[in-house]
Amino acid sequence: MLRAKEIHLASRPHGEPTPENFRTVEIDLPELQDGQILVRNIVMSVDPYMRGRMNDVKSYVPPFQVDAPLDGGAVGEVVETRSDAFAVGDAVLHGKGWRDTAVLDGRSAMKVDLDKGSPSAYLGALGLTGLTAYVGLTAVAQFKPGDVVFVSGAAGAVGSLVGQIAKAMGASRVIGSAGSKAKVARLLELGFDAAFDYHDGSVTKQLAEAAPDGIDVYFDNVGGDHLEAAIASMNKNGRIALCGAISQYNSTEATPAPRNLALAIGKELMLKGFIAGSYQHLAGEFSEKMATWLADNVIEWDETVVEGIDNAPQAFIGLLRGENTGKMIVSI
Amino acid sequence: MLRAKEIHLASRPHGEPTPENFRTVEIDLPELQDGQILVRNIVMSVDPYMRGRMNDVKSYVPPFQVDAPLDGGAVGEVVETRSDAFAVGDAVLHGKGWRDTAVLDGRSAMKVDLDKGSPSAYLGALGLTGLTAYVGLTAVAQFKPGDVVFVSGAAGAVGSLVGQIAKAMGASRVIGSAGSKAKVARLLELGFDAAFDYHDGSVTKQLAEAAPDGIDVYFDNVGGDHLEAAIASMNKNGRIALCGAISQYNSTEATPAPRNLALAIGKELMLKGFIAGSYQHLAGEFSEKMATWLADNVIEWDETVVEGIDNAPQAFIGLLRGENTGKMIVSI
Repeated sequence: MLRAKEIHLASRPHGEPTPENFRTVEIDLPELQDGQILVRNIVMSVDPYMRGRMNDVKSYVPPFQVDAPLDGGAVGEVVETRSDAFAVGDAVLHGKGWRDTAVLDGRSAMKVDLDKGSPSAYLGALGLTGLTAYVGLTAVAQFKPGDVVFVSGAAGAVGSLVGQIAKAMGASRVIGSAGSKAKVARLLELGFDAAFDYHDGSVTKQLAEAAPDGIDVYFDNVGGDHLEAAIASMNKNGRIALCGAISQYNSTEATPAPRNLALAIGKELMLKGFIAGSYQHLAGEFSEKMATWLADNVIEWDETVVEGIDNAPQAFIGLLRGENTGKMIVSI
Repeated sequence: MLRAKEIHLASRPHGEPTPENFRTVEIDLPELQDGQILVRNIVMSVDPYMRGRMNDVKSYVPPFQVDAPLDGGAVGEVVETRSDAFAVGDAVLHGKGWRDTAVLDGRSAMKVDLDKGSPSAYLGALGLTGLTAYVGLTAVAQFKPGDVVFVSGAAGAVGSLVGQIAKAMGASRVIGSAGSKAKVARLLELGFDAAFDYHDGSVTKQLAEAAPDGIDVYFDNVGGDHLEAAIASMNKNGRIALCGAISQYNSTEATPAPRNLALAIGKELMLKGFIAGSYQHLAGEFSEKMATWLADNVIEWDETVVEGIDNAPQAFIGLLRGENTGKMIVSI
C-alpha cells in the first residue's frame, strides 16, 4: 500500500497563522479506480487567497475544513494511471497541492509541456498568477497605453507581473510599492520607473511624490492605506482593480480604510473587484502573449523556493509576512 | 439703476453650515451689454453638492469664493434683453441662482417650455436631478430588468426618482432608506417595495431584512454606513453608483467606512463614481422618457418649497439636515 504525506488544517488561525494551525498527516492511499491517476507532486503553490479559506466564512471558494487536507495548485508527474488520457511520466497541473502524492480523477488534471516552462512556471507566470495580473490590468482596470500605473505588493508574484506587463504594453510610468529595500531595488531592475518601501513613511505621501502627474490605474493587492493613497493620487476617470487585500487577511478587526472613498464621485473613479477564474475566456490570448514575453526576456519571473512538503506551512506563513520575492513555491 | 439681492458666502462652514456663513447683499446691477439678458428668478435650487463647494478644496467644480455670490441652478423670466435669441417673457434655465435678479450672457441660458413642466420641474425631474438619477441607474450601475435595487437618501430629489425609474424599467424589487417615518411612508406610496428609517437600527441589518435575496444595484447618495451595508448585501457581480455622500458632507474628519470593501474582490463588485455632467450625451434619451413617465403618472415628483430668497441659506441648511422630501426648492 502506498503512503502519502498531507498537510491538514489542525485549527482555524485567529489573526496570523502559526505552525500549530497545521498538521502533517501520513495516510494510506486507496487503490486507483478507473479514470484515476496517481501523481507524485513536484511543486505546489502557496497563495494569499488561501488565508481567507482558513476562516469559516462563505466566500467565492468554500472554506477549508478542519482536520482535512488543504488544497491548492500543484504540478506533478504521473506515476501510475488508469486513465486513457494520461501516460506514466506525463507532467500535470492540478488542484491537489499540500501533499506529496495525490490520487486524482484524470478529468481534473491538465497536461503541461515542461519544454515550454518549468513546473513552477505553470503555477506562476504561465498559470493563474499570470492570468490574474493580465486580466486585472487589461479587462478589469481597462489599461491603455500612456497610462500611469501603480501596483502594490509589487514584488509579489502577481504584482511583479502587473508592472512588467504594463511596461510591455506601453504604460507611460509604472510605480510599485513593496516591503523592503531589497524588493524596491529588484523592482527597479525589473523596469519599474519608481518604487518605494511602504515602511519608509506615509504611503499617500510617497505615492504622491512618485507620481507627480497622478495615476490612471491602480492594481490593488494590499487594500487599507494603499487603497486610500491610490484614491488620493487618482486622476479623473481612474480605474482600480481590486485583486487582493493582503494587509487585511490576518486582521481580526475590520479595516477602517479607505476613508476618502467619497473622492471617487468627483473624480468619477471606477473600482472593480475580480477573481481571475471569471476571465478564463482570456486565457488563450494571455498564454500566447506571456509565452512571447518570457521567451523574449521582456518579462522576468522571480521565485522564492522553500524545500520540502513539511515546510509548506512555514512557506505560507512567510508569504503572508512578505518573506517572498515573486512567487512563493514549495518544492516537494 | 436696478437693485438686486444676492446671497454671498460670508465665511466657509466648519462642519454643519450656520446662518452666519451666509450674507444677503444688495447690489446695483450693471447696464446690459450686447448679447446679455436680465432675468427675474422664479425658483432656485439648493443641492447637496454645494456643501463641497463651500470648502476650499479642488474638486470637479471650483470652490465658492468668500465674499462673492453663490451660484447654482435657477429658472427665471427674461425681463430685458439685448440678445436676439431671447424675448421679454421667455422662461430660461441658467446657473445664476442664489439671487433674485441676474444679468446673464444669453449663451449661458437655455429656453424652457413652461407648458411642459413647471419652473421647478426644470430644476428637478426634467433637469439635472432627473438626469443624475437616470444615468446613475442605467449607464453607471448598468441596471437591467429583474435587478434588486437599493437606494439611500431615497426620499430626496435624486433618490425618489431612482427608485421610481427602477420600478418603471422592471426592477424585481426596490428598497429605499430615509430619515423619518413620514419619508418611509411616502416611499411606499411611491411604489417602493420596502423602505426603512436608518434611525431605527443598524443599516446593515435593516437592509439584509428588506433584501432577503441580496441586492444587485446600489445607488449611493449617502456613503458611510449605508455603503458598508450595501456591500454586505450585494450579490455577486453587483454594481454600485457612487453619486453622493451626504452623510459626510458636514464631516470634519474622514469617515472610516466602508470597512468591508475587501468583500468587493470575491463578489466581483463594481463601484463607480460619477457626475451627471459627464453623461450629457444621454440627455435626449432621458428627457423623452421622463416626459412620458411624468405625463403617464408613472413617476411622481415631490418638492419641499421654501419661500423667499432671504430664506435660501435656511433651505440649504435644512437640506443637509434632511428636512426636505423630494427636491428642495426656493421660490423667489
